[in-house]
Amino acid sequence: MKLATIRTAAGTAAVRIDDDGDDRGAIELGAADLGEFLARPDWRAAAASAEGPRHDLTGLDYAAVVPRPEKVFCVGLNYRSHILEMGRELPEYPALFAKFARALVGAYDPVELPAGSEQVDWEAELGVVIGTEVRHATAEQAAAAIAGYTVVNDVTARDFQYRSVEWLQGKTFERSTPVGPWLVVDEGDPGEISCEVDGDVVQKADTSDLVFSPADLVAYVSRIITLVPGDLIATGTPGGVGHARKPPRYLAEGSVLVTRIENVGELRNTLVEGD
Amino acid sequence: MKLATIRTAAGTAAVRIDDDGDDRGAIELGAADLGEFLARPDWRAAAASAEGPRHDLTGLDYAAVVPRPEKVFCVGLNYRSHILEMGRELPEYPALFAKFARALVGAYDPVELPAGSEQVDWEAELGVVIGTEVRHATAEQAAAAIAGYTVVNDVTARDFQYRSVEWLQGKTFERSTPVGPWLVVDEGDPGEISCEVDGDVVQKADTSDLVFSPADLVAYVSRIITLVPGDLIATGTPGGVGHARKPPRYLAEGSVLVTRIENVGELRNTLVEGD
Repeated sequence: MKLATIRTAAGTAAVRIDDDGDDRGAIELGAADLGEFLARPDWRAAAASAEGPRHDLTGLDYAAVVPRPEKVFCVGLNYRSHILEMGRELPEYPALFAKFARALVGAYDPVELPAGSEQVDWEAELGVVIGTEVRHATAEQAAAAIAGYTVVNDVTARDFQYRSVEWLQGKTFERSTPVGPWLVVDEGDPGEISCEVDGDVVQKADTSDLVFSPADLVAYVSRIITLVPGDLIATGTPGGVGHARKPPRYLAEGSVLVTRIENVGELRNTLVEGD
Repeated sequence: MKLATIRTAAGTAAVRIDDDGDDRGAIELGAADLGEFLARPDWRAAAASAEGPRHDLTGLDYAAVVPRPEKVFCVGLNYRSHILEMGRELPEYPALFAKFARALVGAYDPVELPAGSEQVDWEAELGVVIGTEVRHATAEQAAAAIAGYTVVNDVTARDFQYRSVEWLQGKTFERSTPVGPWLVVDEGDPGEISCEVDGDVVQKADTSDLVFSPADLVAYVSRIITLVPGDLIATGTPGGVGHARKPPRYLAEGSVLVTRIENVGELRNTLVEGD
């Protein structure tokens, strides 16, 4: 099952995306966005049975899958093969940092190049969306608290990221982070993750290579703070970022950034100058 | 003028605190909290002229001054004398990290010791609350966007802070960060900042010693992301934290933490075991 937040003439709406079979369309779920919808305790059943107003799939305008999550946690190095190839040891604890909701945009929206940055880079990531409030979760509770997966590109201004010891300022630029197009619920292994810039494959890995799995991360974060429906965890990016290339490669105005996870979906964003 | 968010039998309420002269009391401002109130374009005039329901000052139950800010930015090393005494150079850019709203508690609330941490430390800080939406602010616009000042203790789990290169996980524990008791509007220099633990003065400095002033920080952050009414910036702590002492000193169950800024106000919190 695929759920999303779309923009309509009447504002945003949570929808179920039926893109298989004869009866295709986006069916409204009766909530203004997916964050609000996931706060319903019965959201799984309600989503499966919804028969609200229908939109054509063609030309759907996707907002960020949860436009205003209460919290966005991001994870630093988390792909085993990439950590080992860099000669580092596998970490005992995840490196966590934050992003604020205003950084998020939809799956096909323009992504804004931060004014003042000359080093805007890509980071394809598997996104985990919370579906149940959870605190001090066991492994089992953590797995059950996951609503599903989405695709994230944690677009990063490297020069700002490294201005201080803390990465936040390179990570939370306004309208810089595409998330979507949808939330995939109960569909199993997300599979291969990849990123293309102007048609060149720049990252390719398998999401099964994560050191800290989605459930590990939910359990870990829930020992720090309560996770609530709609919260997003971006689980880290594999090797192949532009900053680590020789010579380095960065995004520029007009760059086309495609971020794909095999069994989840695809983002396609063009870089534009920020305000 | 002092504004606050209090808890009443009917829920939280934004109030003006009249604690001077004959006619003392907390006057309701017609909003559920100070974040909602500051979103009114005319909030300064409305606060000054409000004549809503009145509460006795005795026994007021203060919530975090803005209970659910959209964003909380915190600043690393920012007191000149402390940076220089540690043999470091003054930074060119502020070190910014985040905290999520669930970490905030009121001025006299219990502060929770994070389960699993053995190194819970104090960090007295001047808090800056935003009163006007601002993006790419000039120095003048940044100063005008500040609603006023409050008192923050950025209570930190040092062991979690240093588990990875990113500090977030030691900084955003649930119900760990007191903020209040009120917002002081248009009252000039905040003056001396100090922190006491069980009656011992452990931090003392002057807020004029900040490397990046409140307006500097608002201008800087606004180049990254839009600041909106109710957003909080915790401006960094002076020397004297427990982790840097020899031997180190930490907070424990029953510790009484008093955080004071001369012309702003005082927090008084007792440490309790977290859930």
